Amino acid sequence: MKRNLGPVNTLYPSLTTIVGAVVDGKPNFLAVAHVGNMNHGQPQYLSFGINKKHYTNKGIHANGEFSVCIPSEDLVVETDYVGIVSGRNTDKSQVFELFSGVLPNAPLIKGCPVCMECRLERVVDFPTHEVFIGEIVATHADEAVLREDGSIDISLIRPLLFDMSSLSYWSLGAPVAKCWSAGKELKRSLREGGGKS
Amino acid sequence: MKRNLGPVNTLYPSLTTIVGAVVDGKPNFLAVAHVGNMNHGQPQYLSFGINKKHYTNKGIHANGEFSVCIPSEDLVVETDYVGIVSGRNTDKSQVFELFSGVLPNAPLIKGCPVCMECRLERVVDFPTHEVFIGEIVATHADEAVLREDGSIDISLIRPLLFDMSSLSYWSLGAPVAKCWSAGKELKRSLREGGGKS
Repeated sequence: MKRNLGPVNTLYPSLTTIVGAVVDGKPNFLAVAHVGNMNHGQPQYLSFGINKKHYTNKGIHANGEFSVCIPSEDLVVETDYVGIVSGRNTDKSQVFELFSGVLPNAPLIKGCPVCMECRLERVVDFPTHEVFIGEIVATHADEAVLREDGSIDISLIRPLLFDMSSLSYWSLGAPVAKCWSAGKELKRSLREGGGKS
Repeated sequence: MKRNLGPVNTLYPSLTTIVGAVVDGKPNFLAVAHVGNMNHGQPQYLSFGINKKHYTNKGIHANGEFSVCIPSEDLVVETDYVGIVSGRNTDKSQVFELFSGVLPNAPLIKGCPVCMECRLERVVDFPTHEVFIGEIVATHADEAVLREDGSIDISLIRPLLFDMSSLSYWSLGAPVAKCWSAGKELKRSLREGGGKS
């Protein structure tokens, strides 16, 4: 039995990230879980949406560059911290140890297992929010989270998954099934006219 | 030690959804994990990005309506199935038992614990992909996944989390910490000048 809750967003959990930008000449960081995947392939785009009141927006508009770093569970305190204090009245440039990549205005966090540098591609405007779409220019990953073939092992990242309803960060669980594979048996049986068992 | 992998998208895991639309007068469904959160508040928007070659796009453009349903782990076979066969040559209208909500062209799946009906708000265009942004009009949830106060308990949904690198669906793990709380102690100690311990 279903209940109509009204227009409630249930697109959770979403991946918790730390967005970095240079604002007024100083690196600034903001926890952001309202992220989005735009496409698949190259150029590769991603998005995040934040309220226009945030301090970070100004730096992204000014420089056209930002970073998106993925914190592990180990960094939950610092991640939450940069989500509850504003760069407007708090210097967050010293919270993390930083490193440089390709873009001068995309500050990268050493302690995050994966960091992406992005060039601002466009801004999608809403009444209270801006959705920044960036093209990924480079992705830096800890050797420790890479498989032998150089691809990323998500279980080694141990990402923080945000849920609005419980206002909690959740961990990643175990693998459930292979994509583009689990449904193959059903495809076969339906093609053979056996119907859905 | 970090390695530069080039422009690799590491915005995973992302929530696996089933997007529904009416195409040529018939309900059609597509597994989509490239979703996005746009804002917080009302009107509440969400997005998903899919290749322009998909059959679903036509129906959304024609009707300006679609659904986004959240499958549980129990539905992994059907979810994967509607991701590997195209509505262009396969009738997917019988895969799920459906129900009606507010919008006539947003087919809803009974077997999904949560379903959202969306009105198309705008389309963000990329060379190969379209990102559909919808305004959530109504959200239907199983009584079984609701807490006593009517809010959603994400652990009862048991969502499928998609990861591109492992090409697997993953389960949700355990709660790690409370949001807007875990960082409060650090905020206090930094304000008191104690520095980061």
